[in-house]
Amino acid sequence: MSTYLLNDRFVKDDEISISIEDRGYYFGDGVYEVIRVYGGTLFTAEEHIARLYESAAKIRMQLPYGEEEMKHKIEQLVRDNGIDEGHVYVQATRGAAPRVHQFPGEDIVPVITGYTKAYPATASQHEPVTLKSVEDIRWMRCDIKSLNLLANVMAKQEAYEEGHYEALLHRSGTVTEGSSSNMFGVKDGVIHTHPVSNFILNGITRRVVMECCTELDQPVIEEPMALEDVYNMDEFFMTSTTNGIVPVSAIDGKQIGDGRPGPVTEALMAAFDRKLPVPVESK
Amino acid sequence: MSTYLLNDRFVKDDEISISIEDRGYYFGDGVYEVIRVYGGTLFTAEEHIARLYESAAKIRMQLPYGEEEMKHKIEQLVRDNGIDEGHVYVQATRGAAPRVHQFPGEDIVPVITGYTKAYPATASQHEPVTLKSVEDIRWMRCDIKSLNLLANVMAKQEAYEEGHYEALLHRSGTVTEGSSSNMFGVKDGVIHTHPVSNFILNGITRRVVMECCTELDQPVIEEPMALEDVYNMDEFFMTSTTNGIVPVSAIDGKQIGDGRPGPVTEALMAAFDRKLPVPVESK
Repeated sequence: MSTYLLNDRFVKDDEISISIEDRGYYFGDGVYEVIRVYGGTLFTAEEHIARLYESAAKIRMQLPYGEEEMKHKIEQLVRDNGIDEGHVYVQATRGAAPRVHQFPGEDIVPVITGYTKAYPATASQHEPVTLKSVEDIRWMRCDIKSLNLLANVMAKQEAYEEGHYEALLHRSGTVTEGSSSNMFGVKDGVIHTHPVSNFILNGITRRVVMECCTELDQPVIEEPMALEDVYNMDEFFMTSTTNGIVPVSAIDGKQIGDGRPGPVTEALMAAFDRKLPVPVESK
Repeated sequence: MSTYLLNDRFVKDDEISISIEDRGYYFGDGVYEVIRVYGGTLFTAEEHIARLYESAAKIRMQLPYGEEEMKHKIEQLVRDNGIDEGHVYVQATRGAAPRVHQFPGEDIVPVITGYTKAYPATASQHEPVTLKSVEDIRWMRCDIKSLNLLANVMAKQEAYEEGHYEALLHRSGTVTEGSSSNMFGVKDGVIHTHPVSNFILNGITRRVVMECCTELDQPVIEEPMALEDVYNMDEFFMTSTTNGIVPVSAIDGKQIGDGRPGPVTEALMAAFDRKLPVPVESK
């Protein structure tokens, strides 16, 4: 049986159940993180945990223990479940209370849950994937990593069932990000990506990629791309915690460049992989 | 112990628990309804149940049984719990499955939960309440009664902690609705309210009020109000399933009319109360 994190305890599968009065269940009143494990070691754990607490603060929720204790618990979860390659999912809801929109009284205690998922290690050398553009109908606080993900689900599903790997979200023609990823175009040697704002999640992998760009003297323009311009990019790639850097070969059926990962994407993938805790096999 | 609806069964408190893999818990991937009970009788049950199935269809979720069976189950829940005055809450999520954004396979089974809440009967003759205007930052599909309610929660909390009853939501100065209510202004004998669109929930109580307007030859203009205009309305009121018609005495600290329910509001409250299944005491 797997070990789960439940508040400040570790429990087994058959001990984990959620209250019907959990505000996460009827309001999506909570936040979450996914942290990647490479070779048994958490990658960018501090950054993810810091963002979890930032998201919680943005919805005015105080977690019952601090970031350091959270990190220890997440590390123990990885050890207990013997995770070598995979990820940890951790979420915190405002707690269980009878349903009223306003916050319950001071005695409400957040519900923290966490679990691990094992899967084969993959580095960034993925086969290229394709995207479908989908109107971004999400709320105005996409900077909060909240449990209100129905718009993301619907967008991903729309792309997925037409055979695409991810949805390229745009607000009336202005590209924001993916349903669970950040998006980057390359034109004439310059990377274009949406600036950090309320319209995108400030991805941790995005931040690592920006670091790599600095190290490689790779120019980046943090300005939103127009959807009509992405089709003419020389290269395109997406980033996410789960998959690192993923090259994009086509958007809406239109091939990007020659359909293969370009030189900027490949240089970044190599730089990214060098930052991982352990060498990772190419896919 | 109370009786709960769990899928197609009736269970007791200690039998009801939610899976950590319920998509409602980590994506808010579900829809819900609240149905008022007056004198032991459900009010506008068919309309609420129809909207539940409409919301489900909008997120492409098929419930495992139909509207008629749902109504029977909800009626039985009210009987089993001996609810005379109160409401039924019912929600349906896409079901439990390992977390991926796209829909799980065909074998996913929605999770339906329902429970009752008893409270004293109140008709529409409420004491007037006050509102605080709050920017409407929700997604673009507010017509779907989904579990993604974090923006509503934050807006209600902002109004509530400043001593107001409800948030008056507006998109950059254009009034949409409340955090859990529809909004109506009265100017020179004419009612103004946001038209049914993706920016508001098509409230069942709103529909009943519109019927009352037709019956009373009360003119209604279904066009969005500008926030700057609401302060100069002669009357203002809000509607919701839980509270019927509620007069508003002030918005953002500015008194509406003379601060008392005006003649249009009072006529509508009387007409609304005549539609209830049983006579209800004034508050």
